[in-house]
Amino acid sequence: MTDIAVTQELAAWTVGLKAADIPASVRAEGLRTFVNWLGCAVGGCEHETVDRALAVAVPFSGPQRASVIGRKERLDELHAALINGISSHVLDYDDTHLKTIVHPAGPVASALLAVAEERGVSGEDFLTALIAGVEVECRIANSVYPDHYDRGWHITGTAGVFGAAAAVGRLLGLDKQQMTWAYGLAATQSSGLREMFGTMTKSFHPGRAAQNGALAAFLAKANYDSSERGIEAPRGFANVLSTKQDYNEILGKLGEVWEAGLNTYKPYACGIVIHPAIDGCQQLRDRLGARVSQIRSVELVTHPLVLELTGKKTPRTGLEGKFSVYHAAAVALIRGDGSPAAFTDEAVSDREIVALREKVSARADESVHEDAVHITVTFDDGSKEELHVAHAVGSLEKPLSNDAISEKFLRQSAPILGEQQTATLIELAWNLPQTADVGTIARASCKK
Amino acid sequence: MTDIAVTQELAAWTVGLKAADIPASVRAEGLRTFVNWLGCAVGGCEHETVDRALAVAVPFSGPQRASVIGRKERLDELHAALINGISSHVLDYDDTHLKTIVHPAGPVASALLAVAEERGVSGEDFLTALIAGVEVECRIANSVYPDHYDRGWHITGTAGVFGAAAAVGRLLGLDKQQMTWAYGLAATQSSGLREMFGTMTKSFHPGRAAQNGALAAFLAKANYDSSERGIEAPRGFANVLSTKQDYNEILGKLGEVWEAGLNTYKPYACGIVIHPAIDGCQQLRDRLGARVSQIRSVELVTHPLVLELTGKKTPRTGLEGKFSVYHAAAVALIRGDGSPAAFTDEAVSDREIVALREKVSARADESVHEDAVHITVTFDDGSKEELHVAHAVGSLEKPLSNDAISEKFLRQSAPILGEQQTATLIELAWNLPQTADVGTIARASCKK
Repeated sequence: MTDIAVTQELAAWTVGLKAADIPASVRAEGLRTFVNWLGCAVGGCEHETVDRALAVAVPFSGPQRASVIGRKERLDELHAALINGISSHVLDYDDTHLKTIVHPAGPVASALLAVAEERGVSGEDFLTALIAGVEVECRIANSVYPDHYDRGWHITGTAGVFGAAAAVGRLLGLDKQQMTWAYGLAATQSSGLREMFGTMTKSFHPGRAAQNGALAAFLAKANYDSSERGIEAPRGFANVLSTKQDYNEILGKLGEVWEAGLNTYKPYACGIVIHPAIDGCQQLRDRLGARVSQIRSVELVTHPLVLELTGKKTPRTGLEGKFSVYHAAAVALIRGDGSPAAFTDEAVSDREIVALREKVSARADESVHEDAVHITVTFDDGSKEELHVAHAVGSLEKPLSNDAISEKFLRQSAPILGEQQTATLIELAWNLPQTADVGTIARASCKK
Repeated sequence: MTDIAVTQELAAWTVGLKAADIPASVRAEGLRTFVNWLGCAVGGCEHETVDRALAVAVPFSGPQRASVIGRKERLDELHAALINGISSHVLDYDDTHLKTIVHPAGPVASALLAVAEERGVSGEDFLTALIAGVEVECRIANSVYPDHYDRGWHITGTAGVFGAAAAVGRLLGLDKQQMTWAYGLAATQSSGLREMFGTMTKSFHPGRAAQNGALAAFLAKANYDSSERGIEAPRGFANVLSTKQDYNEILGKLGEVWEAGLNTYKPYACGIVIHPAIDGCQQLRDRLGARVSQIRSVELVTHPLVLELTGKKTPRTGLEGKFSVYHAAAVALIRGDGSPAAFTDEAVSDREIVALREKVSARADESVHEDAVHITVTFDDGSKEELHVAHAVGSLEKPLSNDAISEKFLRQSAPILGEQQTATLIELAWNLPQTADVGTIARASCKK
């Protein structure tokens, strides 16, 4: 229970935030969040999950004011928010707020770009709204994590809806009262169960959070009223959906310490625990050159969680490959790849990769950090090569460079949009802060 | 934790149910559920809550295949489900499953009629789907009530989404596998907080449950997959949203004992605890005739909850009048009214009603059942008249007659659609089981 007007204070901050209030480093991280999200949305857009969702969305769509990223279809803003949210998350390749395992961009950017597209929104206003949304989403997640997540809520859905409401609410010019209602309408739609992991419904969560949050903002704009204490009331979001409620995580140092500056981007299209092994094997590949063909054995020393979660010895499908540290190491050594292409049915049954995979062993060691790995390669001639990864690429300590984000984008988008359109799109995306109308970026993402 | 495949067994029952499996008494109750719901949806359709929701729905609507009950607008099925669900609940005048305080028809009928309208669905198939939906909704509610409701969930929203998925899923011809997925998609959208009571967002809940449940069914039809244990899994609906999980309430005697046969209909447009007082005062009015003008005092002896919830002495607005047992008694004695017209700003400031209201006193007595009241009227000449209500009209023991449901419909609908169109609509509604195409009823409900 609290006497603090959490929802109203958060609403006041959300509507009052100005571009100039945001430090340059946070704006830069917001831009990286956007570019990474856009690349992932293109990368996932032809997945059968998206095909099936579109088969439903198209016949219900209103006027086609918004692009479906990477595709030819156009939809109304709310349906586009849904589909783009699904596309951006379906490959489990998007961004991560490591403190809470929220994937911040899916709910927020998917709603925002769809609503912005035909409203002549500048890149600067867009970026400010995006950062506001991510900040609200991650802070609300912090206030209930880990109890809320442990109970079984998919936090990207449950917290994401607030972020989408915040971001779209700013675009629509909500006043404080309306933003308070928007948060109430978001709270009452907050949903998404972890039970759905492993099914198409997992990626439905960020999509639906985007759509629900946008709807909350549109309703509030029409003065559809709601509780003014949606987050903190005894029967509000935090008390009903969690046993932990730390409102200081929401309001403490708001505008001074930025969660939106702590986003990270997956370099590899699989669970984050295998990332150190892939990183190390890619580095070894660069170092070893032709000697990769002379490997007798590869020994990995990892955190115990790696084997618990990804200990599959002989994966049969690409999806199973994501849960095999042996496959991940082998494909990284042979192809230097950790992208979605490394986790296809083809890749897991490639003879050369299978042969090397069988030479990989792994040993759990409590003293190894989750973010680290120690790799020893023994060659046919008995010589050895060792490599230690202290922090995997993509972690907060060793963030993906902008070039690496571009490269990740290119690898995902080129097979779908072609190299030329992809190059143009990447350039447009990085140029967001200088863009007069973000609609140009949305339209440039579509298949011609 | 349970090993029983609750979701799959419920799905199998839902898709396998045949009209002939349903006892005549339950089919009759299903018809009453439909007629009462339709009248309430007409009655609420011009409320400003509906106006504001429509201001958002219209610009996002897809092809206009579905009627907005009582109005001229048309929308796609999903948006019509939302708006009709709001209309039917906004006056707090709809139906009640007393065991759980679920308002069953809002989520189920709102989704069903919208989807059925242009699909050439017979009244018989419609009624079977409606009953299946209400049964699923009330059984799921039973499985988690009261813990789930006490925690702060608005059960009409959280359980309603399953009912809507069941009913629409039948119309779409889902197979068992797809219905299982539809329940998973319903589970992951289950939402709605009691904190929203007293705001426009309360009636958003049955509307959104209708829309979300319908979406779940459409997605499942497109083979958008989901968990197969959405209800009972450790991180499924019942465990995440409740501390009580009684799966026997869902599967026990399914198809033998019918929750759908236990629906009740409010005779009066206010909280159910004042109903005995209104019932008694209406009876007294009929008995007293002109002597009503000679009343010196009215004493009510009621269950303590009546004063706790509705003890407002001098209501200033119609809405406050719903929380004043004194006003409710006075308006019933003078006008014989408990309809929405009895709870307007005009009614609570009417001189004659105010004068009588000031003569009404109430005393709480633990021994009086929630459903009962004892009324003593004392006249100017010192004589007395007493009346005891053992079970208020509208309770399970004294259900509203079909004529009373028609009268309630007429009173709500005549000011909106006119007497003639209302009479036709009431006749069409009662004739549902013989209707070849329920679309004719939907269209007959619209303003010309």
